[in-house]
Amino acid sequence: MESLIIDSPLDMHLHLRDGDMLELVGPLTSKSFSGALIMPNLAPPITTKEALLSYKQRILNACSEDDFKPYITIFFQVDYSYEFLKEIKDEIISVKLYPFGVTTNSETGVASMDINVLRPTLQSMEKLGIPVCIHGETKGFILDREKEFLPIYESLAINFPKLKIMMEHISSKESIDLLKKYDNLYATLTVHHLLLTLDDVIGGMLNPHAFCKPIVKKPEDRDALLQLALDAHPKVMFGSDSAPHPKEKKETSDGAAGIFSAPIALQALAEVFEKNGKLDNLNAFVSLNAQKIYGISPIKKSIKLVKKDFIVPNTYNFKNEKVVPLFAGEILSWSLED
Amino acid sequence: MESLIIDSPLDMHLHLRDGDMLELVGPLTSKSFSGALIMPNLAPPITTKEALLSYKQRILNACSEDDFKPYITIFFQVDYSYEFLKEIKDEIISVKLYPFGVTTNSETGVASMDINVLRPTLQSMEKLGIPVCIHGETKGFILDREKEFLPIYESLAINFPKLKIMMEHISSKESIDLLKKYDNLYATLTVHHLLLTLDDVIGGMLNPHAFCKPIVKKPEDRDALLQLALDAHPKVMFGSDSAPHPKEKKETSDGAAGIFSAPIALQALAEVFEKNGKLDNLNAFVSLNAQKIYGISPIKKSIKLVKKDFIVPNTYNFKNEKVVPLFAGEILSWSLED
Repeated sequence: MESLIIDSPLDMHLHLRDGDMLELVGPLTSKSFSGALIMPNLAPPITTKEALLSYKQRILNACSEDDFKPYITIFFQVDYSYEFLKEIKDEIISVKLYPFGVTTNSETGVASMDINVLRPTLQSMEKLGIPVCIHGETKGFILDREKEFLPIYESLAINFPKLKIMMEHISSKESIDLLKKYDNLYATLTVHHLLLTLDDVIGGMLNPHAFCKPIVKKPEDRDALLQLALDAHPKVMFGSDSAPHPKEKKETSDGAAGIFSAPIALQALAEVFEKNGKLDNLNAFVSLNAQKIYGISPIKKSIKLVKKDFIVPNTYNFKNEKVVPLFAGEILSWSLED
Repeated sequence: MESLIIDSPLDMHLHLRDGDMLELVGPLTSKSFSGALIMPNLAPPITTKEALLSYKQRILNACSEDDFKPYITIFFQVDYSYEFLKEIKDEIISVKLYPFGVTTNSETGVASMDINVLRPTLQSMEKLGIPVCIHGETKGFILDREKEFLPIYESLAINFPKLKIMMEHISSKESIDLLKKYDNLYATLTVHHLLLTLDDVIGGMLNPHAFCKPIVKKPEDRDALLQLALDAHPKVMFGSDSAPHPKEKKETSDGAAGIFSAPIALQALAEVFEKNGKLDNLNAFVSLNAQKIYGISPIKKSIKLVKKDFIVPNTYNFKNEKVVPLFAGEILSWSLED
């Protein structure tokens, strides 16, 4: 059977949540990844050393595999001191910055993206070599939010030339030009922004399980982002933004934003890279690029995919938690080896 | 208390469904409207004289008011003969044309919008003076479907100059120019396309109860359509496209398209017309324009609205049917008089 080895795949943007949900989704990532950058938007968010160390331990317990490494982040606050950041530097891989109210649990995000307000923290991070990961959206019209945020990315890139700035889950073709323009800008790409458009959310029946922020956009956006991934452009890396919510919080009158893609991500990527004749670039996209961008050496772990139908489960369950994955009930052409 | 009389309001685009759902939603329209144009997309659709007469009677039974008139339509088929159309002419107000697969129960819609395929039926209708109501969307990218359909409207307007063509529930500003260009084009406007944008569906939490086809679009689309309504432009008339679905078919993994607005429509219109200083034009928009366009004289019925908070119910219920209205739980500033 045709097969494929991915060396130490890394998911550089992942939501693992906490409690039963963490126990449900953690192992689904540690099964197919060597490491993952864990987002800190719990409620309350991770903002102290104690909280991050404790969360890291809960993740390790949930994943129960010694060949998986969670790369921990903390939630950006404008009052982090240089001393605090220095103290936790070795425990974290980056700081995640959310503008207020743009997505799940971002109510404690920064109220203003005014560079003078952000400057002290970002300068400390720049000095200490700590990257910043940013959810780059304004509060404007849904389809324009990322585009409207680009001047802020640009201003940050100019003002903090030695700060590594990660444009998280980019979703618009306009973001690509800016990404290429500044040496200190990098980006993560999700599976869903490479494969879906707005048609998959609202084009047929309404699909709450394809609803996320930033929203998937037009075919030309998807195509431009996919090309970047297929080329394994050195400034992009894979970050699933897999963001599980309980089924009942998605299929309701006010559905939560977030796509759960962790257990199907590698399989779906293999399928689209193969279809486009770019399988040779997959390892760079899902591992090598991130290693270079973040300067990390992941745990050595070989993941074997086989060319065999994978019927995506309708739900993943644990205790009372039930989560619907992206592509539930559909068939992907690659499977994880049993 | 400030009050307002609307003379013989007409809803020129309404889905009443059948069975228990008809019994639930019928009275909610007949309470506040003098008449309504009833869409024929039942499953199976209304395509025979027997079916339309029987449906009309079921509607009258459900509404149980002698001051409400359902204006019946049939579902466009390419094989309707001139004789058939002549026979049912006095029983119907128009024929509704659905392209295949664009919305709820449109699986039996026309497979091709090729003018030569449609010509025999449309010529018969033109000769008999029967208008055509069209759901004008292609199967393209969700935000472009109406725009892409405009050349078809234009071709129909040119080829059948004496056929009255109703551009149903227009949702894009591009449609307005075309509407004004040809004498035989008219349009209905819904409440939701005048008040909502895509932000109300996917901008915050996901709202399945604001999900419909054609999808609500950008602020500039909404604003241009609203201006047309506020001006009571003589080529437009109110048609709610109120399209109830059971709550459980909206709040699910493949949610049905359709907004249930019948019981809140007049109140919401009064609010926005008042806010824009155009209350004087409301009667033209919700009644007089339709009378002129269709050449009908509705049952005389005065609906009194009072300036009093109306807390929109979370659901409307009957037997096992439960439907969530637009603006559920919100407060409108006008109420129907008790």
